[in-house]
Amino acid sequence: MNAQKAGALLSKVREVNPLVHNITNIVVANFTANGLLALGASPVMADAKEEVEEMARMAGVLVLNIGTLTERTVESMILAGKSANKHGVPVVMDPVAAGATEFRTRSAKQILEEVKVAIVRGNAAEIANAAGQKWAIKGVDSGEAEGDLEELALHAARKLNTVVAVTGKTDYISDGKQTVKVSNGHSILTKVTGTGCLVSSVVGAFLAVEKNPAAAAAAALAVYGTAAELAAVKTADQGPGSFQVEFLNQLSKVTEEQVALQAVIEKGGL
Amino acid sequence: MNAQKAGALLSKVREVNPLVHNITNIVVANFTANGLLALGASPVMADAKEEVEEMARMAGVLVLNIGTLTERTVESMILAGKSANKHGVPVVMDPVAAGATEFRTRSAKQILEEVKVAIVRGNAAEIANAAGQKWAIKGVDSGEAEGDLEELALHAARKLNTVVAVTGKTDYISDGKQTVKVSNGHSILTKVTGTGCLVSSVVGAFLAVEKNPAAAAAAALAVYGTAAELAAVKTADQGPGSFQVEFLNQLSKVTEEQVALQAVIEKGGL
Amino acid sequence: MNAQKAGALLSKVREVNPLVHNITNIVVANFTANGLLALGASPVMADAKEEVEEMARMAGVLVLNIGTLTERTVESMILAGKSANKHGVPVVMDPVAAGATEFRTRSAKQILEEVKVAIVRGNAAEIANAAGQKWAIKGVDSGEAEGDLEELALHAARKLNTVVAVTGKTDYISDGKQTVKVSNGHSILTKVTGTGCLVSSVVGAFLAVEKNPAAAAAAALAVYGTAAELAAVKTADQGPGSFQVEFLNQLSKVTEEQVALQAVIEKGGL
Repeated sequence: MNAQKAGALLSKVREVNPLVHNITNIVVANFTANGLLALGASPVMADAKEEVEEMARMAGVLVLNIGTLTERTVESMILAGKSANKHGVPVVMDPVAAGATEFRTRSAKQILEEVKVAIVRGNAAEIANAAGQKWAIKGVDSGEAEGDLEELALHAARKLNTVVAVTGKTDYISDGKQTVKVSNGHSILTKVTGTGCLVSSVVGAFLAVEKNPAAAAAAALAVYGTAAELAAVKTADQGPGSFQVEFLNQLSKVTEEQVALQAVIEKGGL
Repeated sequence: MNAQKAGALLSKVREVNPLVHNITNIVVANFTANGLLALGASPVMADAKEEVEEMARMAGVLVLNIGTLTERTVESMILAGKSANKHGVPVVMDPVAAGATEFRTRSAKQILEEVKVAIVRGNAAEIANAAGQKWAIKGVDSGEAEGDLEELALHAARKLNTVVAVTGKTDYISDGKQTVKVSNGHSILTKVTGTGCLVSSVVGAFLAVEKNPAAAAAAALAVYGTAAELAAVKTADQGPGSFQVEFLNQLSKVTEEQVALQAVIEKGGL
Repeated sequence: MNAQKAGALLSKVREVNPLVHNITNIVVANFTANGLLALGASPVMADAKEEVEEMARMAGVLVLNIGTLTERTVESMILAGKSANKHGVPVVMDPVAAGATEFRTRSAKQILEEVKVAIVRGNAAEIANAAGQKWAIKGVDSGEAEGDLEELALHAARKLNTVVAVTGKTDYISDGKQTVKVSNGHSILTKVTGTGCLVSSVVGAFLAVEKNPAAAAAAALAVYGTAAELAAVKTADQGPGSFQVEFLNQLSKVTEEQVALQAVIEKGGL
């Protein structure tokens, strides 16, 4: 994956307008739907066990997010995930706050055991805890050194037998053999709730149109980060309210050419 | 209904400030409440079976929305609907994505059988599926020809014995005898999640102050579309984030006079 | 508490970045999280009975909000509250729409009986109904005379044996002995859904860094009202959509010095 290809994949997402089935949380459902619509994808939220198998089967991708998980929704995620697996629909998982409580850690692991997941997207602490590694959690974020994060992505990918995207100031995407670094984005993203959840769904939208999960994740993160940079410039010093509004604008307006110019995608060093 | 009367009805909504009881989904609950507040209505969201009968009884209108339905909320919708029927509170229903899954289609039909609904508001595919007609679903939208939609509204109204509003580029409101066309709105509405759900609740707010359901629906759709047009002009080329913010502003600011000038309401030809 | 101390406490919130565990409703979860992030606190939303005891124990404060309560979430609130009590984590409660239905009134009372709550924040009708007083509910707001509200705060604080904050045009904070009045804010707050819910969580963020509940509540209300005033001036005549965006900006930008200049905090007269 490189900047030019990432831009081209953005255009493909807009052309295909993939149906993204999200089972997600009450905090970010609205923002996720609006972000996917702005980007050019077609979101659907449905989490009743009576319908998730049918909905997942029809989707271009299924995105599982445990942000406000309950016993009911974990059951739905597994039903939906198995249906997606059976019908060749790829699955993205976001283990929100795995490690913060035993229920989250256990549920994340259970989903990863019962469902074949193509990409797991999270911050360092979430990824480490989902992969069963001992990794200190500092609030909801991880302040680890850069080298550690690359290693974490690589090891978690091997352990979970999936592509892993550890996002932060720099994003590390690994398939267990190679690691790619994406260095787009802006720190104000951490001041808007659900920007991590939305990026998992955007990764899903790219995965719906690109079979290689590591390539899809890298392109999605580069496009997302580029849109955030454009929005941050346009709303400099205004605050997180204005940034969020402009970020939705930029997800809709960012062009293939801007991504080709601005995306920073490199091979990792491990 | 004509443009002048639609404007007058907007002023009546603001004067009465009707209590709109919504049983709705996790994606649009916030946007729906903010849209109703901006318009001048008084939203309340409550979906626990322990309280919906009591809440619906006190409301000016009850709006049922199956966007993220579960067994629990379908049960609550039926309890609330029966209470509303018993106490003379009118009911609006939005059969979100009926036809997309068997559970949605079945639940929409069950609610329509057990509750006397005054207005059903949906896109073409949702209305057709709720009315048991065979109508192809193309994603979440319907790309049918104009003539078909007018016929659909008429037939669905007869079949469901209620007023039906099929919304899209042009909106068709039918009581089973006559059909009214409303041609306001803007395509950017399709890039903001929950604009369909919100319009159902706005239809509800108008129904709370106007006994004729077809008149209430036509006026609501004209006012909503006019506010969208004003917001689209004001945020041209800015993107869906800015449009959404300005749309809330315009729902609050649009005047009786602007509606009288700008609303396009015509009799249908069938 | 005075204006200068309120400003200093804002700086302390930003320095400590307290973890605020919210069990809240589907309407305001996103706005609450964004408001807390903007202010400088760290929100977490979790309501599964499997994890709330663990989450509450780790938090700086627990905020319970019955906005869209169900049997499931009331159970979770009580489990979380007891865990918070056991581990010395202070608890704020927002009895949203208590008095509107029997289920709400009963649930509010049950939570207040089983959990030791440090601060109850609500409008006049909510506070009165939670405290078992006969107080007419007029829609969702209360239009009572000023003297009455001060008396209500005082009596409710005595009855509930907690600090009570009755918010409205003027806010009254009472510990059952003394009452403090805060006169910041702007009427457009009533046109944005969840501004009452968010202020309860902001009160929580201040309580996480200030042991005196009445002082924490007064400072939080003064800071919140000051941010609202700044946002209202900046978006005058634009509408509630723009106000909401700018309010998030101002929660992030309002300084200790602005609060010291602008906060209006007085002793009550009873």
